[in-house]
Amino acid sequence: MNAEVSTLDNKVIERGKQFFDSISGEAPSVFNKGWWTGKVMDWSMKNEDFKVQMFRFVDVLPYLNTSESLSRHIEEYFAGEDSNIPDVLKWGATKTGFGGGLVAKVLNKTIRSNIEGMARQFIIGQKSKEAVKGIRKLRKDGFAFVLDLLGEATVSHEEAAAYRDGYLEVLDAIEKEYKKWDALDASGDLDWGHAPKINVAVKPSAFYSQSKPVDLEGTVQGMMDAIEPVYKKIMDMGGFMCIDMEALKYKEPTVEMYKRFRKKYPDYPHLGIVFQAYLRSVDDDVSGLLDWARSENLPISIRLVKGAYWDYETVLAKQNDWPVPVWTHKPESDMAFERVSRMILENNDICHFACASHNIRSISSVMEVANELGVPEEKYEFQVLYGMAEPVRKGLRNVAKRVRLYCPYGDLIPGMAYLVRRLLENTANESFLKQTFADEADVSRLLENPELTLERELAAKPKNNPGNKTPEGELPPFNNFPPADFTVKEERDGFPASMAKIRKDFGKRYPLYIGGQEIVTDDTLDSYNPADTSEIIGSVCQAGVAEVDKAVATAKQAYLDWRDVEPKERAQYLLKASQYLKDNMYDLCALQVLEVGKQWDQAQADVAEAIDFLEYYAREMIRLGAPRRMGNAPGEYSQYFYQGKGVAAVIAPWNFPLAISVGMVSAAIVSGCPVVYKPAGISSAVGYGIVEMFKAAGLPDGVFNYCPGRGSVMGDHLVDHPDVSVIAFTGSMEVGLRIQERAAKVHPGQEQCKKVIAEMGGKNGIIIDDDADLDEAVLGVLYAAFGFQGQKCSACSRAIVLGSIYDRFIHRLKEAAASIKLGPAEDPTNYMGPVVDKAAQKNVLEYCKIAEQEGSVVIKHEAPAEYRDKGCYAPLLVVDGITKDHRIAQEEVFGPVLSIMRAKDFDEALDIANSTRFALTGAVYSRSPKHLEKASREFRVGNLYLNKPSVGALVERHAFGGFKMSGVGSKAGGPDYLLQFMDPRLVCENTMRRGFAPISEDDDWVA
Amino acid sequence: MNAEVSTLDNKVIERGKQFFDSISGEAPSVFNKGWWTGKVMDWSMKNEDFKVQMFRFVDVLPYLNTSESLSRHIEEYFAGEDSNIPDVLKWGATKTGFGGGLVAKVLNKTIRSNIEGMARQFIIGQKSKEAVKGIRKLRKDGFAFVLDLLGEATVSHEEAAAYRDGYLEVLDAIEKEYKKWDALDASGDLDWGHAPKINVAVKPSAFYSQSKPVDLEGTVQGMMDAIEPVYKKIMDMGGFMCIDMEALKYKEPTVEMYKRFRKKYPDYPHLGIVFQAYLRSVDDDVSGLLDWARSENLPISIRLVKGAYWDYETVLAKQNDWPVPVWTHKPESDMAFERVSRMILENNDICHFACASHNIRSISSVMEVANELGVPEEKYEFQVLYGMAEPVRKGLRNVAKRVRLYCPYGDLIPGMAYLVRRLLENTANESFLKQTFADEADVSRLLENPELTLERELAAKPKNNPGNKTPEGELPPFNNFPPADFTVKEERDGFPASMAKIRKDFGKRYPLYIGGQEIVTDDTLDSYNPADTSEIIGSVCQAGVAEVDKAVATAKQAYLDWRDVEPKERAQYLLKASQYLKDNMYDLCALQVLEVGKQWDQAQADVAEAIDFLEYYAREMIRLGAPRRMGNAPGEYSQYFYQGKGVAAVIAPWNFPLAISVGMVSAAIVSGCPVVYKPAGISSAVGYGIVEMFKAAGLPDGVFNYCPGRGSVMGDHLVDHPDVSVIAFTGSMEVGLRIQERAAKVHPGQEQCKKVIAEMGGKNGIIIDDDADLDEAVLGVLYAAFGFQGQKCSACSRAIVLGSIYDRFIHRLKEAAASIKLGPAEDPTNYMGPVVDKAAQKNVLEYCKIAEQEGSVVIKHEAPAEYRDKGCYAPLLVVDGITKDHRIAQEEVFGPVLSIMRAKDFDEALDIANSTRFALTGAVYSRSPKHLEKASREFRVGNLYLNKPSVGALVERHAFGGFKMSGVGSKAGGPDYLLQFMDPRLVCENTMRRGFAPISEDDDWVA
Repeated sequence: MNAEVSTLDNKVIERGKQFFDSISGEAPSVFNKGWWTGKVMDWSMKNEDFKVQMFRFVDVLPYLNTSESLSRHIEEYFAGEDSNIPDVLKWGATKTGFGGGLVAKVLNKTIRSNIEGMARQFIIGQKSKEAVKGIRKLRKDGFAFVLDLLGEATVSHEEAAAYRDGYLEVLDAIEKEYKKWDALDASGDLDWGHAPKINVAVKPSAFYSQSKPVDLEGTVQGMMDAIEPVYKKIMDMGGFMCIDMEALKYKEPTVEMYKRFRKKYPDYPHLGIVFQAYLRSVDDDVSGLLDWARSENLPISIRLVKGAYWDYETVLAKQNDWPVPVWTHKPESDMAFERVSRMILENNDICHFACASHNIRSISSVMEVANELGVPEEKYEFQVLYGMAEPVRKGLRNVAKRVRLYCPYGDLIPGMAYLVRRLLENTANESFLKQTFADEADVSRLLENPELTLERELAAKPKNNPGNKTPEGELPPFNNFPPADFTVKEERDGFPASMAKIRKDFGKRYPLYIGGQEIVTDDTLDSYNPADTSEIIGSVCQAGVAEVDKAVATAKQAYLDWRDVEPKERAQYLLKASQYLKDNMYDLCALQVLEVGKQWDQAQADVAEAIDFLEYYAREMIRLGAPRRMGNAPGEYSQYFYQGKGVAAVIAPWNFPLAISVGMVSAAIVSGCPVVYKPAGISSAVGYGIVEMFKAAGLPDGVFNYCPGRGSVMGDHLVDHPDVSVIAFTGSMEVGLRIQERAAKVHPGQEQCKKVIAEMGGKNGIIIDDDADLDEAVLGVLYAAFGFQGQKCSACSRAIVLGSIYDRFIHRLKEAAASIKLGPAEDPTNYMGPVVDKAAQKNVLEYCKIAEQEGSVVIKHEAPAEYRDKGCYAPLLVVDGITKDHRIAQEEVFGPVLSIMRAKDFDEALDIANSTRFALTGAVYSRSPKHLEKASREFRVGNLYLNKPSVGALVERHAFGGFKMSGVGSKAGGPDYLLQFMDPRLVCENTMRRGFAPISEDDDWVA
Repeated sequence: MNAEVSTLDNKVIERGKQFFDSISGEAPSVFNKGWWTGKVMDWSMKNEDFKVQMFRFVDVLPYLNTSESLSRHIEEYFAGEDSNIPDVLKWGATKTGFGGGLVAKVLNKTIRSNIEGMARQFIIGQKSKEAVKGIRKLRKDGFAFVLDLLGEATVSHEEAAAYRDGYLEVLDAIEKEYKKWDALDASGDLDWGHAPKINVAVKPSAFYSQSKPVDLEGTVQGMMDAIEPVYKKIMDMGGFMCIDMEALKYKEPTVEMYKRFRKKYPDYPHLGIVFQAYLRSVDDDVSGLLDWARSENLPISIRLVKGAYWDYETVLAKQNDWPVPVWTHKPESDMAFERVSRMILENNDICHFACASHNIRSISSVMEVANELGVPEEKYEFQVLYGMAEPVRKGLRNVAKRVRLYCPYGDLIPGMAYLVRRLLENTANESFLKQTFADEADVSRLLENPELTLERELAAKPKNNPGNKTPEGELPPFNNFPPADFTVKEERDGFPASMAKIRKDFGKRYPLYIGGQEIVTDDTLDSYNPADTSEIIGSVCQAGVAEVDKAVATAKQAYLDWRDVEPKERAQYLLKASQYLKDNMYDLCALQVLEVGKQWDQAQADVAEAIDFLEYYAREMIRLGAPRRMGNAPGEYSQYFYQGKGVAAVIAPWNFPLAISVGMVSAAIVSGCPVVYKPAGISSAVGYGIVEMFKAAGLPDGVFNYCPGRGSVMGDHLVDHPDVSVIAFTGSMEVGLRIQERAAKVHPGQEQCKKVIAEMGGKNGIIIDDDADLDEAVLGVLYAAFGFQGQKCSACSRAIVLGSIYDRFIHRLKEAAASIKLGPAEDPTNYMGPVVDKAAQKNVLEYCKIAEQEGSVVIKHEAPAEYRDKGCYAPLLVVDGITKDHRIAQEEVFGPVLSIMRAKDFDEALDIANSTRFALTGAVYSRSPKHLEKASREFRVGNLYLNKPSVGALVERHAFGGFKMSGVGSKAGGPDYLLQFMDPRLVCENTMRRGFAPISEDDDWVA
């Protein structure tokens, strides 16, 4: 710190001390242990498990509509094994000595009212009338307000419209009386002489349910159109509107919308936007907007907050292996807050500033900087949250006058989500409020310059353990390739550029590739764009019996050397292949968008999964390739290792045209089995990418042979071939079973019994429990059923919904489905596109008929006619009234058809879920710990997802595959997969000669 | 130590110091670094790897008959990766700068002559004439001798007879001149006035190639008959014979033989026996013999040594999980030596004592004790080894006069084995000679009372690491159940007792056992004793189609609960079952001896293997049963675990009637798959033992169902049954392939695709390289081909022999095969018994015909006619002149027929070895490191054994199973076996709610 800063710092600390003195002895009510909330907070801070359970319980509470349901959840969340409900929860109830179940029943009213009371502490009112009453009172106490409507999770146009209407309604209510309100600390119509009395905050994503980063323009336009009526009304009333900042994924459209509003209504200055100091990008974001304001000569208003989604952003980034976008040390956010505050204050000529923080150090810093810079009072104000930090708001009121309270209002259901956020904030170890009022930390610590705090914290940390680093020469541990982050402009721009580029190549001929030679056949098959069947992707040579024989013979010859290539060396080829995919990401994605109609994110996920398979199997082979010593008897050295089985025929599907192909092919190859690869006809151009990939990797000739062909011509011949030792297949059950049966016959000259690995169909169900978080469940089912037109073996084709939530779910799902756009995958505004080809279209349409006959249509959503004329579209269809006996509940459709099935209770839901021939994926949306546990055990599928959609399996993390008629073999991308391509061998050496054996360290020797 | 001992101890130390003074400055020639031996010893002591290579090279040297072979081995043993041969080996050769290969060629003569020179240092002569010349010289120097003929490894009557003749020959040579020898230090015929001039040591096992602990009486008689001519000749010459003590397994017959000789020739006192102080039993052994001598009133003579097989005994015990029979701390042996010496000296009235040690402390102690006890000089003498410890022998000669040198003579081939023993002795860290003369340890340390040394050593050891102990409540790590130790009387007596006991039960009816109920059928099948077909073991109920349906339905019902029983709990049933087998070991063994004709050790190995499967799979399931977290993304908890596939049909063979059945059954059950078990008809009584076993374990009804039946009646029905999900089969290739083909068809109502695990046939080869240690190879092939009549899938049916060693091998094998006894397994003198039933007999006899037609008979060895009349005997048949194209080289016989195939070099041998449809087991006898390495890679079978027979796989250590037409599935008793009975499942929970996720320790979280 230089001298100047240091001087300022002393002033900041001095002012902070005065602040503390002025509020001495007071504490926010949330920390008051004399009351229930304070007790709960206290327990939560001391007991992490209780905290998790408590927050989760608060979250689910609004869904617990019956006293039975409430009691059951109280017991499940809190009773634990000893059936003892923590004393804190019993507070306010008559003492009782009964066991868990009964206690829960006795307590349920008390607990509900306590929690609702806690919520009311943070929420100014549930109805608009209440809210108006609340703000009226606040104003009497000398505080301004900014009103926020709870309920930002909207999944459909309908819900977004209702949300907007909620704003209009409260504005109507305010309109009736606001003129009667006295201005705060001033005469005239404006608070403090300069601020509109009416101040409203809006969360833009809630106004437009189809917001998504990949569709920046659509999102901006959708949000703006929905918010504009509210803004107009506010403007009519002379009020202020602040556009809140939500999760990072909405940052760019939010800023863009702010700019457009400002330009559209340049003369109305009362429009604010929020920035979050916890974002590493905050300096650039704010200075960018300031520059824009200056260049446009449009005054702006910025509220600076620390940010409320830290956990979410961090978890999301870690889950996706994206760079963490937020500061990972709390003082860094505090530093950014001070830094950016100064930046804004320095631009006070063009920017109004709202300092929103409960941190007395931050507040003091803003005051001192404003003072130092001579910022006029009307250029900045302070904001704190309603119901939190009462001493701070009081102190601020005394010192700074201009204090505005952020007041949420609305129903308790969305209110609980808000409550959880506030509780989290107050119980986090880094929370200033917690440190100040609960931990009673030393004031000088609390007021310390965050730069010093950071230094101290870093110094106190244990040095990075070098043991955690990847040793020289070893591969770093496996990590999934990150999904596309469409908040990044380059990622959004990559797709159209690549599509334009590869379109130039369309129509070219794809030869076979056998033993390193291109082979052209007379017979060819055209691959076309399903969104426009007149667009030919390429013309693919088709292998006949002779070409299959040649390919198998070539692979057999290659096997003789390849099986003995060191596992580590084989793995290197996969790693090189992975690099090729990374280097050609956009082109590979673009081809899939056009050849099979994958949405951008789905295409990227497919290529990423291909990379994952290569990286994972490479590491798996290195792991399995190290011979294992068996036993530790001295005088004997026994080693267990693996040998590739022989030639592998890989018969691949079109729906994950790169990922599944690369997965099966690379597993075989790295295990020592050369491959004859038959891609699906529909996706042979994508399949040819594997030729290019292995060429780039320098794989020896003959180890990979590209051999597309018509199943009817060469399928059986390949399966029956005596020199094929492994068949890896992914596709339909019918073909899978046929392969299995044929492969079991040993033909003359055959060396090995054939190993068949078959991933087959699914008829996957998602259970919606009566306490499911519908905000997530509706979107989860929608995505699982209709993402990539439902053409995934993991797709959800049955939603099994509990009776008590049935109507709510169906309604929301219907509206959500109605809100999505249908059209070519090329355009990222479209949620769903055409099915993969004409045959698929015909098949799906037949199943639509069956579905409509067997059930009643909830929604049938068609693509616009101009698309339907050109491409292979099928409608999005949801039917209900389906039972286990219906064909549509039993047969795999492989298209966008969803059946809704009603279950009277969770056990019946499980029974329905398990009632098909398949056992591939499934999901449960529930907030009942017992039901989740039960489902983990009894929802018998290969991949079960809890509170997640049934699709999107990631290599390793969600090793993929099922049983029953869904599969033969072990999970792809899992730890047992490669074993299937190899035979174990054991070599045991007697090391004793003439009674003398060398003794090694790991021998079981005498002490 | 009490005061008395302490006084004595001071005297011992004083005398020791005088001894050291008297030899001051002298060192044994082996440690003289001016010479090649000393250099090699020095290198060996400093470099453990070099030592191992050097000793192994010394061992193989006599087989390296061509200069090509010698050069190649020098390079393989010593050149290493940098082609640098250690300088020490170049000693004596002209300096040369060439690379590895050439250097080896240049050096080969030098190295051979150096090593042979080293051997001659320890061996008094290769021919009897040389030997006589040598002892004549020794006597001139004042030393007596005891002569020992090298070559104790005899594998046949012929070789044993030759060995005996070697003694007679040298005695003849001595006879010609010994009368001319002056007595040492005395006049008259006796050395020192009391000792015969002629003194000969014999190793009894070498005189009788069929010695084995299980056959105590046969062994004693066989040894005695062979040694008696030698003993008579010695008596005729008035000489002394000492019976040497070899490995522990011969101790009991050796002592017994000594007693019988003494009783047979009570008046001839010059017969000695040796005891080894390193045996923990030495006090009891010696006092036992002393008591016997006193009670029989027969004077005896004992030589006490420390013992020369310490490494061997320890390795053997550790490999077999027997108690280690030797002291594991060197001072303990020294203590025992002093203790037992005193015991013998105290009995000097009835026992003459030869103190055989190079340890000056031990020698001094004997001198002082003898002095203290006033033992007459003629009652004790001192012995040391020829060529070792020259200073000690000189010192002894000065002090004690009566010094005898132990003088081996004979060919260099067996001589090398002796050389290795001596080198080992001299380079061991604990060696007194090494400490004295190479390490130049402090004299007071060397003379320290070993009790104190022990205390000091124990105190210096790190305390037992508690981390190595099995934590409370956890299973100790898996260990194979020990093989029968027939040196223990109880083990020998257990078998006849149990056979008598179970014979009383013969003829009883065995019901089916389904769902906990015994079910009797009209159709029954008798099981008979193959050694006496009139003896009916039992009458076994036979399941038809209806019983199979009932058993499958029962198992299917049991599955619903069993699959969800915790893996740890399922494992407990296996552990209880294992206890039942341990508790009933002898009865279970005895039943196998009688029902299928297993030799005692083979029967015990089968039951032990059954125990191993139970113990191993229990632990494996506990290991696999713990769900594995996949990935470490925060906000998500993903677990990978396994579920049993469903009902398992186990179709078992008769040849390992308990082990393989229990292995397949217990794997299925512990994995969560209830079992319908069909034992082989021939061994259904043994199979019924599994019913009793699981009853004792308390396994829930329906989880195990005993369902014997005729394959022709119910086999296909069981295989085809739609409710069977797993078929575990062990048996012939024909049946295995049929099962595989049928099982691949999915029938209506079938839930799961069937998993087939099939262990099928083998046509196993053993390669005999031109440098193979034939002492081991001959016995190994004999055992692998004819143990249990060759009725093992792992049995050796092809010996692939390199041309240059072909004749030697065939001759020794032929003689060895001719020496074994054929007859009922009940009698442990018989090496080979009847094949398992009449059908097997018919089949084997047909193959005998084919073998005799295709090749020429090396030996055809028939059981005595009296046995053949009653049982299902087939001859032991060895044919040679067999090539790859012969049927007998390709088809599995499953009986005692061995083909010999000639290979011109090792590559051709590998080619022949790999030339069958099968790939089960194989073995190589070779001492070429390169060939062993090559075979490890290119001898492509499931279980390859190096310098071990191809049979006798142990659970885990030799996880068992092959590929090609030998098997479908992963190795039994291996780490991947249980996976085959289970489907992996994955449950992934999204743990984030409202942006908040509990973070666990193993999450990938921010630093």
